[in-house]
Amino acid sequence: MRAHDPIEHLIGLLAKLPGLGRRSARRAVLKMLMQPEQAMLPLAAALREAAAAVRPCRICGNLDDQDPCHICRDPQRDRSVICVVEGVAELWALERAHAHRGLYHVLGGTLSALGGMGPEDLSVQPLLSRIAEDKVEEVILALPATVDGATTAHWLGDRLRPSGVQVTRLAQGVPIGGALDVLDEGTLAAALKARRVV
Amino acid sequence: MRAHDPIEHLIGLLAKLPGLGRRSARRAVLKMLMQPEQAMLPLAAALREAAAAVRPCRICGNLDDQDPCHICRDPQRDRSVICVVEGVAELWALERAHAHRGLYHVLGGTLSALGGMGPEDLSVQPLLSRIAEDKVEEVILALPATVDGATTAHWLGDRLRPSGVQVTRLAQGVPIGGALDVLDEGTLAAALKARRVV
Repeated sequence: MRAHDPIEHLIGLLAKLPGLGRRSARRAVLKMLMQPEQAMLPLAAALREAAAAVRPCRICGNLDDQDPCHICRDPQRDRSVICVVEGVAELWALERAHAHRGLYHVLGGTLSALGGMGPEDLSVQPLLSRIAEDKVEEVILALPATVDGATTAHWLGDRLRPSGVQVTRLAQGVPIGGALDVLDEGTLAAALKARRVV
Repeated sequence: MRAHDPIEHLIGLLAKLPGLGRRSARRAVLKMLMQPEQAMLPLAAALREAAAAVRPCRICGNLDDQDPCHICRDPQRDRSVICVVEGVAELWALERAHAHRGLYHVLGGTLSALGGMGPEDLSVQPLLSRIAEDKVEEVILALPATVDGATTAHWLGDRLRPSGVQVTRLAQGVPIGGALDVLDEGTLAAALKARRVV
């Protein structure tokens, strides 16, 4: 065996990415090696550029090549509503839904006894400062519908309410296009409990 | 929208890789952005290194950072047996099986009327030269068990036999661990026809 095999080294690094196993990494490398100039060098340059340019927004915690991020800078956004998310992945998912016109706040996790996440690990004080300084009227807790997410939402609501802000959370119910017979009982019960007059 | 968003640019390039859709590419980029120095810069460097170092072996067509490749250079390999494969992916798969101790020859495709691959697109003349110059005794046709693969094997066998070399092909039959009731009829028929006394 060679001391350093650039192909195996590259496959090993790619295989560490989520969603790519060793087999897919190998296929991807083979495909790129067919036209290295067109496929590999642009990807290498894009990685270097992103690593150099992207950083967390000092206001909301979003990842962007601008700081503050393009959402916090956008004069069209409603600055009186902040949507609290667990992480950047959830922020991006909400942005793709085009459903929230306010700002965001990345909490950095949820309270989790098993995961070793305590209140001091979450970005709560910066959120309280934003509420106090920016005339925030509503905080939407868009946390995961898990036990940890619900615990965090409950605890965070108690921390936020004294500042006079309205605290809301996402509705729970049947997903759009969701068939009832494959839905879990918890969701069905929640949807039934939150039923609305039509 | 920004004119150039480095995050979206990177996601777009990654999403083009086989096995990675847009969703997985986004997850991969998010994970890398959490620790750009440790995750993105090494990957960028590995891509640049592979693009610069890896090229097709002038003898067999394998992709390697050495030319001739490490297989063609290996004095332990049996130079009297050449295994003909469609592409580098198949060569790597056979190497992982540790079953072939001879050399390889990458054909560069199979004859395909639909795919527009004709005899002139395949690396046949270099193979004939190797057989003539290197005292090759056996050529194993490890081509895909498809119509195009079988057509190519038949045609190539006719081209190679006049040089006096023995031409063989991979056995067809029941895969190891394969259950008979989920196997296609063609494989079952081939396995039955090629049955052996035990």
